[in-house]
Amino acid sequence: MNPDILRERQKATFDVEKLTHILDGAPEKTRRRREIQSLVLSDPDFQHEDPNFMSRSDRYDLAVKKSAQMILKLREYGIADPEEILCYKSLYRGNRHEALGLHFVMFLPTLYSQCDPQQFQKWVPLAESFQVLGTYAQTEMGHGTHLRGLETTATYDPATQEFVLNSPTVSSIKWWPGALGKTSNYAIVLAQLYTQGNCHGLHAFIVPIRDMNTHEPLPGIVVGDIGPKFGFHEVDNGFLKLENVRIPRDNMLMKYSKVEPDGSYVKPPSAKLTYSTMVFIRSMIVGESARALAKSCTIAIRYSTVRRQSEIRPGEPEPQILDYQTQQYKLFPLLAMAYAFTFVGQYMTKTYHRITADINQGDFSELPELHALSAGLKAFTTWAASTGIEVCRMSCGGHGYSCSSALPEIYVTFTPTCTYEGENTVMMLQTARYLTTVHTQLCVGVCRLVEMAAKSIQQELQRSKSQEDAWNSSAIDLVRASDAHCHYVVVKLFSAKLSEIGDTAIHSVLSTLALLYALQGIAQNSGDFLQASLLSVPQVLQVSVRIKELLSQLRPNAVALVDAFDYHDEMLKSVLGRYDGNVYENLFEWARRSPLNRTEVHESFHKYLKPLRSKL
Amino acid sequence: MNPDILRERQKATFDVEKLTHILDGAPEKTRRRREIQSLVLSDPDFQHEDPNFMSRSDRYDLAVKKSAQMILKLREYGIADPEEILCYKSLYRGNRHEALGLHFVMFLPTLYSQCDPQQFQKWVPLAESFQVLGTYAQTEMGHGTHLRGLETTATYDPATQEFVLNSPTVSSIKWWPGALGKTSNYAIVLAQLYTQGNCHGLHAFIVPIRDMNTHEPLPGIVVGDIGPKFGFHEVDNGFLKLENVRIPRDNMLMKYSKVEPDGSYVKPPSAKLTYSTMVFIRSMIVGESARALAKSCTIAIRYSTVRRQSEIRPGEPEPQILDYQTQQYKLFPLLAMAYAFTFVGQYMTKTYHRITADINQGDFSELPELHALSAGLKAFTTWAASTGIEVCRMSCGGHGYSCSSALPEIYVTFTPTCTYEGENTVMMLQTARYLTTVHTQLCVGVCRLVEMAAKSIQQELQRSKSQEDAWNSSAIDLVRASDAHCHYVVVKLFSAKLSEIGDTAIHSVLSTLALLYALQGIAQNSGDFLQASLLSVPQVLQVSVRIKELLSQLRPNAVALVDAFDYHDEMLKSVLGRYDGNVYENLFEWARRSPLNRTEVHESFHKYLKPLRSKL
Repeated sequence: MNPDILRERQKATFDVEKLTHILDGAPEKTRRRREIQSLVLSDPDFQHEDPNFMSRSDRYDLAVKKSAQMILKLREYGIADPEEILCYKSLYRGNRHEALGLHFVMFLPTLYSQCDPQQFQKWVPLAESFQVLGTYAQTEMGHGTHLRGLETTATYDPATQEFVLNSPTVSSIKWWPGALGKTSNYAIVLAQLYTQGNCHGLHAFIVPIRDMNTHEPLPGIVVGDIGPKFGFHEVDNGFLKLENVRIPRDNMLMKYSKVEPDGSYVKPPSAKLTYSTMVFIRSMIVGESARALAKSCTIAIRYSTVRRQSEIRPGEPEPQILDYQTQQYKLFPLLAMAYAFTFVGQYMTKTYHRITADINQGDFSELPELHALSAGLKAFTTWAASTGIEVCRMSCGGHGYSCSSALPEIYVTFTPTCTYEGENTVMMLQTARYLTTVHTQLCVGVCRLVEMAAKSIQQELQRSKSQEDAWNSSAIDLVRASDAHCHYVVVKLFSAKLSEIGDTAIHSVLSTLALLYALQGIAQNSGDFLQASLLSVPQVLQVSVRIKELLSQLRPNAVALVDAFDYHDEMLKSVLGRYDGNVYENLFEWARRSPLNRTEVHESFHKYLKPLRSKL
Repeated sequence: MNPDILRERQKATFDVEKLTHILDGAPEKTRRRREIQSLVLSDPDFQHEDPNFMSRSDRYDLAVKKSAQMILKLREYGIADPEEILCYKSLYRGNRHEALGLHFVMFLPTLYSQCDPQQFQKWVPLAESFQVLGTYAQTEMGHGTHLRGLETTATYDPATQEFVLNSPTVSSIKWWPGALGKTSNYAIVLAQLYTQGNCHGLHAFIVPIRDMNTHEPLPGIVVGDIGPKFGFHEVDNGFLKLENVRIPRDNMLMKYSKVEPDGSYVKPPSAKLTYSTMVFIRSMIVGESARALAKSCTIAIRYSTVRRQSEIRPGEPEPQILDYQTQQYKLFPLLAMAYAFTFVGQYMTKTYHRITADINQGDFSELPELHALSAGLKAFTTWAASTGIEVCRMSCGGHGYSCSSALPEIYVTFTPTCTYEGENTVMMLQTARYLTTVHTQLCVGVCRLVEMAAKSIQQELQRSKSQEDAWNSSAIDLVRASDAHCHYVVVKLFSAKLSEIGDTAIHSVLSTLALLYALQGIAQNSGDFLQASLLSVPQVLQVSVRIKELLSQLRPNAVALVDAFDYHDEMLKSVLGRYDGNVYENLFEWARRSPLNRTEVHESFHKYLKPLRSKL
């Protein structure tokens, strides 16, 4: 153990293990989580080459292999609880994706929730036994968040009782769905339903895309990988072009809407039904924001205690870089944010489960608010975490750029959350739409921003613009109002969490974090607070002074606070973030394994550099 | 040509070609630049496979091949002017790096500037004929920006008249130098010079690392690639461990300091000499900030006129996404910034050349100010551009994540500028140190922040802290003061540039950009302006309103303003940023070339997925 990091752990003012229990929910949950993780760690099949050193095709290959292994092992160990499966997988996957991810998170859940009883009986066993490997093909080249714009068509032909699926334009080609390119043999395709000459909007269809035995694409199907991306090397995000593909009538998912054999259409009972899935996925994403940020803080803070650089006082040994105020200012507000988002994620999941129970009893009353709030919180937390990961990476200096730090991988794996499941700006505007309807119930800061946006809309209307143009011309203000509201909600939920904590030492350190999070939000938006006369100039100055005091206060607990997240080294996969702090020797060890070092002399020397001399 | 983008070009209120001339410096320069670029474009050797589809080893291989080709072609065409060479190479390279980059930008210039006449005669011809391929090995695993902390030693042995070089610790291993891993056979090694029992600080030594004929590492040399990074796939950033490596006395670069045969040390005449190289490199980096941002804006703005999505007014066709206020608010301030940074870069280069002439006449008077300012401007522009590129990328929705957009590559290639050639926070503090000495000469806004930082230092001193601790405890305020000063300087230089522009239409649109840049800076720091009573609350509100007006004003000229940067499609390498706007068909075309599509069925199906079924 590096002596610097050892000393950090001795300085902690609270019991790390107890805080871990709080983060997990209970001591029993911590114990069970570690038990499951130890299954992975003690497993010889878990040893794989570092994907950083592999080609994309080999990385995809390894991901498929791991997915298949995981399925078998989870059955072997009898792990079936969704939370426990997630725990097992998250260690197995590290910072990367599962090749069959979409099968589990989209394909199967859609079957569960949208099949009618006959369909359930037919498709679920096939999917659960992996005869059918599926994905969810919604996004097209030309449309993502704006679902009504999707162009794929499913036209009912009563003569054969089939739907005919088509991609009528280039922009209608399905684009981006994970596991679509090479892995899946089925897709749930979202298409505009046409029957009896009318369009009834988007519906879901089960479409076979590859032969069950040979895995070759079926007639009328043009399918493949969309090529390399920013990260996601493990995933075969794919394209799918449909050319007069015929599927039986009962391949339309018919739990809610139906098409009768004669082609007549039966409407679904409520449009709000799809809300709850969205809320669930967004609460998962908020949790992911917390985890990605917590991992990044763990790496950057541990490394900052091991790295010694430059000087504060002449003649003394080089200080740990975490002793620089600027470094604390980069990292501690993010650490506070990681805790804040963890509690927000927990709250959202809990609320989702509570509301789901209400919905099952026919009570939809709380859904619109949660739906609107979840949109904003998804955007708010993913933007902040995405930016925060990069701050963590850059706070590690040059080594933060090396894949050995894991920070590049964490960033590229996480940043797509800003776009998928609803583009963030659009999400913020959804929340704003809700806020403008309820703005008298809001906190005064937020309320003022909503009023400002409302005033801007009024002014634009007076310039004889339409309601819609006025909305667009005030969109910047609306996004700011949503942002402030989300910030307020996060602070409120963090405070609420504090009241649940009995342990005095932990309560104290978490209170410091909560205060830092709140004050940093004020400092960054001090203009808004001054404009609203919520704070005076001396008070704003006081906020800056207080932030610096909080940084010093947190300094001795920094390592303990990231240790409490309890990310095993095998999960972080980061040389800089190692628990033992032995960074440099392991950095050298890692580098020597680079594929470019397999030979002393790269072939390019013989091919280009040596001949160059003779040509000059 | 896509009709949407064609219509955009017809809306422009100014002559794009004339603005290009201003950006290039003169019509003649534009002509010559295009002439050189056409040499690349018409060259059949220029056709290479897309590196996005290649393994890292193959990408490195291709980069070496291209470097060798470029050397031969530049000789063939007789292109020798440094600016023209850069122009040729920048098209040849695209958004990527040159394998032999360090040889040209660091190794050769160091030889030119630090060899004594005998050394010059020996080494320069070897390096210019590429018998010697060199790099510049300064950074170590344990130290980057803080040069005094470097640990590599060069100990003079008068008995043999040799220096003995050693890497005494793991953290002293040279780490990160480009082209060190596999390409170079020589390195200029920066090491602490020991002679006659005394250490004389960092000096530069020419060290052979690989055999000139076989390219095998020489005895005592442990050299290799440091492994994959965030981008930089083309570059073999390397490590170098020196184990009692002996080099002749005259391999120390001796233009300024010397070690005599008996081991006595002769000091250099001025420490300021190294300043001017740093200023030059930083001015290059500021230019690079402008270019990276200009490319990103070109891609995002062109795509935003081709992409139609969602609705503003019901029933109407989907609007171009650039018509959304939120999209304009993301992109137009960045476009303004790209112009601002272009002019700042031009100013710095010009000033560098002017001051160099002074220095050659022994006048160092302006150097300290320029040196201090260049540090801050390097940090200010790279941070802003780095963040800005990501905003551009995310403004393209899902497709911004695809490598086909080129935005991921532009980001990972550019973001290291925040760390190399001086870590940004350290750079900001260097500028702050200068500002605190001259603060009465500053503009009032900046001045107030410097005073605030100074006050904080005073308060910390009163708490009986040492001067050094007080500095550290005020570092956040100091960075903010530097940041404000840099912002002020950029606004000032942009305004100064406007006064040089005669064309009314161009003057008008550039004035709008300059105003947007300035006001956006105020809006983002409105708290500071309110605190300093520089602006009142109604004035701050007026700023927000004015920004929205400027966005609308710029809208019709957006595409023309990015067209004026004149980045050829072959330089952008971006499907989204194509000049003709034909995005979707080319996205499909690009994706089909993905290596994962070489076979219809990936081998992982047979290896893992098919067997999985039988095991369940």
